[in-house]
Amino acid sequence: MTSEHLVVGGGIGGLATALAVARTGRPVRVLERAAEFGEVGAGIQLAPNATRVLDRLGVLDELREVGVLPRRLVLADAVAGHELTALDLTDFPGRYGAPYVVAHRTDVHRILLDACRAAGVALETGADVTDVRDTGGGVEVTCADGRVHRGAAAVGADGLRSRVRRQFSDDEPICSGYVAYRGAVPMDQVSRHADLRDVVAWVGPGLHLVQYPLRSGSMYNQVAVFRSDAYTRGEADWGTPAELTERFAVCCDHVRESTPLLGRDQRWPMYDREPIATWAKGRVALLGDAAHPMVQYLAQGACQALEDAAVLADALERDDVEPAFLAYQQDRAPRAARVQRTARTWGQIWHVDGVAKLLRDELFRQRGERDHTHVEWLYGPPPR
Amino acid sequence: MTSEHLVVGGGIGGLATALAVARTGRPVRVLERAAEFGEVGAGIQLAPNATRVLDRLGVLDELREVGVLPRRLVLADAVAGHELTALDLTDFPGRYGAPYVVAHRTDVHRILLDACRAAGVALETGADVTDVRDTGGGVEVTCADGRVHRGAAAVGADGLRSRVRRQFSDDEPICSGYVAYRGAVPMDQVSRHADLRDVVAWVGPGLHLVQYPLRSGSMYNQVAVFRSDAYTRGEADWGTPAELTERFAVCCDHVRESTPLLGRDQRWPMYDREPIATWAKGRVALLGDAAHPMVQYLAQGACQALEDAAVLADALERDDVEPAFLAYQQDRAPRAARVQRTARTWGQIWHVDGVAKLLRDELFRQRGERDHTHVEWLYGPPPR
Repeated sequence: MTSEHLVVGGGIGGLATALAVARTGRPVRVLERAAEFGEVGAGIQLAPNATRVLDRLGVLDELREVGVLPRRLVLADAVAGHELTALDLTDFPGRYGAPYVVAHRTDVHRILLDACRAAGVALETGADVTDVRDTGGGVEVTCADGRVHRGAAAVGADGLRSRVRRQFSDDEPICSGYVAYRGAVPMDQVSRHADLRDVVAWVGPGLHLVQYPLRSGSMYNQVAVFRSDAYTRGEADWGTPAELTERFAVCCDHVRESTPLLGRDQRWPMYDREPIATWAKGRVALLGDAAHPMVQYLAQGACQALEDAAVLADALERDDVEPAFLAYQQDRAPRAARVQRTARTWGQIWHVDGVAKLLRDELFRQRGERDHTHVEWLYGPPPR
Repeated sequence: MTSEHLVVGGGIGGLATALAVARTGRPVRVLERAAEFGEVGAGIQLAPNATRVLDRLGVLDELREVGVLPRRLVLADAVAGHELTALDLTDFPGRYGAPYVVAHRTDVHRILLDACRAAGVALETGADVTDVRDTGGGVEVTCADGRVHRGAAAVGADGLRSRVRRQFSDDEPICSGYVAYRGAVPMDQVSRHADLRDVVAWVGPGLHLVQYPLRSGSMYNQVAVFRSDAYTRGEADWGTPAELTERFAVCCDHVRESTPLLGRDQRWPMYDREPIATWAKGRVALLGDAAHPMVQYLAQGACQALEDAAVLADALERDDVEPAFLAYQQDRAPRAARVQRTARTWGQIWHVDGVAKLLRDELFRQRGERDHTHVEWLYGPPPR
């Protein structure tokens, strides 16, 4: 047996975990299925519960260089075109010990990858893991091409459609019937943008558009999301570009005229799963989307994976693998479940119509930009 | 031609109008279809916009003697059983120039009837008006039994299914699919009551129960209302007592155990109509439910009729009948339309479920008991 800690999946969650565990002095190997390490070319929001982890991992300064520190999170009415409510982000470092940062996903991934390399993490590509077994006192990880890795522990950070999760649950991803179109383009291609100091979510009945700047304002990131009527009707080809155009036709000029910049070649149907309570069995644990895939409304997918990474590394530092994984699960599962559930509810709140919209807008009107009632639990230090 | 002002309908609105016009020195005759003047045996809420009118008509002191001045209007969760929000009523006399009073409908009606008699109003029963005609310089009102009354003006205060309204609109009452059961019983029959100082509306998904004391607390008034699934299914016999029991089964003990006191023999399907802009043609005008029938959620049906009465009498005092009726319409129609529409919305807010309930409850949690943001326009003096 080797003492290597094997991380299945080299996305942001997997790399952060590898780095955090490597920082404790343990040998770590990352097994990535793709031929190269990489991430999609879109933006990512990193709230202070995530940037605190990146700070601790020693990569926050690098992130600040390539990222943008927005002034406010804004919710605006996608149809009427006016602002509904906002959250001031400028006092976050003082309040939560770290800033709110938006960045390019590829930049965040690259920073973590470089840091892993520097920390001596073994990085292996083309490793399509088909089996993870606790052999009693160790683990054995088998790849499709026959490669076998033995180690002290295995962490399944293999995303929404995780294979490692099959050892924990026979559940399937739940389709929300919503689909996303993305686009991150050079700023000079953009004729319509919101205030460049803000992250703006334009929300409407069954749709929204998120906009924010990347790379010191040289790029503009957009994500348009809508509930597909074709999906509701049970059609196989749903969430098409034609449906995107049709659905956004009701929006205000700004939102409608922003959508042509979205990439039409690729679309992302949105999935999550129900929370599960068991993330650890012996020397195998789940992490990130493999453990708690969530819809994107709180922008917490990667943030929760970063929380996982920090808690997992702390637990391993304190204890042997098995009790450490159990402690990690006990700490993280209830909180991640709350984030998963709240993300769904927050999405519903974004997409309301009728009397619910009336109530929401009134509630928004009444809150101040420094009212942290509904975010303190999320951005603040988790209760320990 | 006589100078008599003819009021078609001897309900609360008709009598208040007769009294208000009589107080200006004009001769008035009320034509009531029923064999006797009277009202149903249930409670009525009189907000300051109504009690100011009753004060001016000289009957507020009498009303206070038979009514109750509640301490608060309370909204409570009919399922969870806890309070959601409340409005303090104790400062209403100082704030709005008159108190919030709840009373027995028959008492309010009797007080107005006595005052009409004392003011010399001619009161005629069994007068089933079938035709109202502007004859040019006067009106002619014909009854089913052949009686004909000639006068200077006619006011159609003949309720939801007004015949006079047919001259103004060919619309029909709109059924909400909700039905009400009522009960006003001696207090000693009541085992379950809310705080007797409050008017309490227990609200739940598609249902509610209103409770308040009457006659110095010697009686207890209850109204239970629910959306009928049988109506939605298109069944002819809908809103039955069996459906009442079934729908309220989900409620908290207090609400569920209150419903046996409701009268099962009679039920009131709830109707309103769309607002109309024309209430006056020549010497004929509409008033009260004939002009602006509304769902009951703001408890403003009678209150708006009382506002009508005061504005109509003022206008007649200032001008000849035709311009006075036009001025009355211009003044009252936009406000009554707003009350009609807001009553519908407020009903939707009472009956929400899911994420809308979440938003509503949060909004309610945040408001104080002396927050008048949403009622000032209604209870305050109307903009003149």
